[in-house]
Amino acid sequence: MSAELQKTDRTTISRHDERGSYDREVAYAILDEGLVAHVGLETGNGVMVIPMTYARLGDDLVLHGAVASHWLGSFEEGRPVSVCVTLLDGLVLAQSAFSHSMNYRSVVAFGVARVITDAETKVAAFKALLDHLIPGRWEDSRQPNKKETDATTVLAMPIDEASVKIRSGPPKDAARDLDLPYWTGVIPLRLSAGSAIPDPAMKEQRPLPDYAIAYSRSAQSKD
Amino acid sequence: MSAELQKTDRTTISRHDERGSYDREVAYAILDEGLVAHVGLETGNGVMVIPMTYARLGDDLVLHGAVASHWLGSFEEGRPVSVCVTLLDGLVLAQSAFSHSMNYRSVVAFGVARVITDAETKVAAFKALLDHLIPGRWEDSRQPNKKETDATTVLAMPIDEASVKIRSGPPKDAARDLDLPYWTGVIPLRLSAGSAIPDPAMKEQRPLPDYAIAYSRSAQSKD
Repeated sequence: MSAELQKTDRTTISRHDERGSYDREVAYAILDEGLVAHVGLETGNGVMVIPMTYARLGDDLVLHGAVASHWLGSFEEGRPVSVCVTLLDGLVLAQSAFSHSMNYRSVVAFGVARVITDAETKVAAFKALLDHLIPGRWEDSRQPNKKETDATTVLAMPIDEASVKIRSGPPKDAARDLDLPYWTGVIPLRLSAGSAIPDPAMKEQRPLPDYAIAYSRSAQSKD
Repeated sequence: MSAELQKTDRTTISRHDERGSYDREVAYAILDEGLVAHVGLETGNGVMVIPMTYARLGDDLVLHGAVASHWLGSFEEGRPVSVCVTLLDGLVLAQSAFSHSMNYRSVVAFGVARVITDAETKVAAFKALLDHLIPGRWEDSRQPNKKETDATTVLAMPIDEASVKIRSGPPKDAARDLDLPYWTGVIPLRLSAGSAIPDPAMKEQRPLPDYAIAYSRSAQSKD
């Protein structure tokens, strides 16, 4: 697999190309940090964008949903999709309204998503999806039985025709605006985890697993 | 404007319909809290999903970008888009891998986005976009001049054919799984603001504006 993502008409960054990257490792780091992907597809009645959980399984992006889902059923032959994952890093407050921005890291990918039927790959995808949500959870939960596996459609799309866009750092006002009197700078943003809320249905008090403690700690310490 | 959003083939929730809502006020609350929209459109070469800042201007959703942008230019006649805004509220850890989920609130909207040419509406959109980013900023920044206004394309799409999906609360394991030994519950997530980073280009030390202090405080207190 090439270290560079595939640059096509669709993935060429045309605005703010200084923010663009085609580095596969950079894209993978963003995909591994994100929790929700926005998936666009042609429904036959216009484009639809929906939020989905996802995971990276090697060089594929995997998605899943119920077999009974009305739109997942049509992926047996493969369907073109566009997938976008965006991480928000900050509000960028400039002197001019025009120069306001956000700091962010995003991946936009294009590809054909296909149903995975191979049983072993399907289990690998389930593991990737759960450990992507919270690393360590797969080994600490009841793994899917045949009925659950059969009821779940897993899609895989190669991560290849894709691009990264990143904005970071302070505002970039025009020099003539720097005499204006406003406060300018960045207000950092991050997705942070709060204190775990035990399920009232748990039959006894159980300690929070180490990986969940680690998750909250790491989600709180990115400041 | 109807209090109910428009239920069509595309907006009817077919999976987990208990999570669905067509309540306009509920949709507006989600749109007003989110910071990034994922916008899907047909490029002529497949669907593309991109992240954009946005704002709600009354019953319209407004988007903006550079006039020079290669894909925004084609919106003069109006183009169909799908717009999705998703807020992540938590990881839902269940006994079974199958029952893991996320708590979230999302809006999926469909409509025709059109270029706004009316000067007064365009300024109203700029104000909405900036005050959506951080309320109070419009009055505390240099407002756009003619050159900047002319260089910016603003799109508006009526918020009407849309639906809301919300998952909240604890995991929902099957009764037979409740004898399993795993910790279950919710790890809450929220987008939180860190300490403001002053722009090194500011010519003097200036106090952080009250609205920025309020922003960080409110983004930190949702726990």
